[in-house]
Amino acid sequence: MDVTVFAVPDLAMQDKLSGATAIVIDALRMTTVAAAAIAGGCARLHAVAEIEEAFALASAHGALLGGERGALPIPGFDFGNSPEEYTHARVARRALVMTTTNGTRAILKAQGAARVLLGAFVNARAVAKAALDADRLCILLAGTNGAFTLEDALAAGAILRQLKSLGAALSLDDMGIAACTLYDGAQGDLHSLLSCTHHYQRLTSLGLKRDLRYCLTEDSLSAVPVQGADGWFEGVKV
Amino acid sequence: MDVTVFAVPDLAMQDKLSGATAIVIDALRMTTVAAAAIAGGCARLHAVAEIEEAFALASAHGALLGGERGALPIPGFDFGNSPEEYTHARVARRALVMTTTNGTRAILKAQGAARVLLGAFVNARAVAKAALDADRLCILLAGTNGAFTLEDALAAGAILRQLKSLGAALSLDDMGIAACTLYDGAQGDLHSLLSCTHHYQRLTSLGLKRDLRYCLTEDSLSAVPVQGADGWFEGVKV
Repeated sequence: MDVTVFAVPDLAMQDKLSGATAIVIDALRMTTVAAAAIAGGCARLHAVAEIEEAFALASAHGALLGGERGALPIPGFDFGNSPEEYTHARVARRALVMTTTNGTRAILKAQGAARVLLGAFVNARAVAKAALDADRLCILLAGTNGAFTLEDALAAGAILRQLKSLGAALSLDDMGIAACTLYDGAQGDLHSLLSCTHHYQRLTSLGLKRDLRYCLTEDSLSAVPVQGADGWFEGVKV
Repeated sequence: MDVTVFAVPDLAMQDKLSGATAIVIDALRMTTVAAAAIAGGCARLHAVAEIEEAFALASAHGALLGGERGALPIPGFDFGNSPEEYTHARVARRALVMTTTNGTRAILKAQGAARVLLGAFVNARAVAKAALDADRLCILLAGTNGAFTLEDALAAGAILRQLKSLGAALSLDDMGIAACTLYDGAQGDLHSLLSCTHHYQRLTSLGLKRDLRYCLTEDSLSAVPVQGADGWFEGVKV
């Protein structure tokens, strides 16, 4: 399997994406939230760039609204960006429209791919299983405001290690090698390595320690959001 | 010292570069060659994007010509991109015009900075000394054809570790943390970690093992090329 890891969404190249399976990672927190919502029974979800667009789409589809701006909840939305809000009681069989700062942007950049999956630490093994049949894999790290973030690289490393353990023969680009090396070096203690990063510290300062624990727990979910031809993500069985 | 590491030149942001000290790294091989040439007594060097431009500038300044395309020497040039070609006997007191695929592009992207230095493994400690008085430091990783390369990240890690050992208090962005973590993890054995990368393998297949050994030897040179207002790089004493 030929693997290309884009350090930030703006580096995603159409010639690499075309015909490939893409995994979008925004581990803190958008793609974790999406996996949690699907695991909670959410029927389908859509990510859009703008708040106004989210209101319009949710209104047209009778959908719930979730997301954040600057890591904070959006007035008038049903949910913020904390994965544990998305309980079965609140999301089962419902459609969900999300808008977030970074994950949404990365999803839009992945649109040239044959198939788009959402990955995170929480569903690392599940998303690796779902991607196992790919000849070419592109991983898009969402980052923060266009800049590289370490947590997304580590989550890519977690997914690539799972692919390898499932028997995939990986041909990695340099960012893929870096992601695996960083993940291996963390030896399971993601919090120690990430505690000096701006994003981890910002979420901590906002009182979101519980979200950090949830998002950095590996393989707690088997849900994999996969984008359909209509742009909506649904869960796939793996 | 506030440190921003750009994973590839295209990510360099003018608002970060403005007023900052920039270090451009193309460890395999352009910035290593530049440091070797300056160490060999080269009076000044200039990097340009195109071969025609290089011929014209060299002709105007009576300069030597060095560089590569696709890692190979350019017909009509005095030097290829192997650092050991740039001996004292051949470069002392001469001007040199270089054109390379990736390093040159990164230097052009750094032009908004207050000061531009060229760094590599060979002059890691020297470039750290030269940058020690900076309030803000931007490191531009040249990469290959617009994609991230691991060797440039490791060289950034080497320079950042030297800055720390010289007493700098570093505030690192996520790519800076990744670079230091990758460098620390290599524990001095850069060849092992890099041997699975495309660029290392390409240079090996071209019979350039000797260049790899030269380029991956740390702190063998004390020369630091620094760009002047006229665009030419000269050596600075550290």
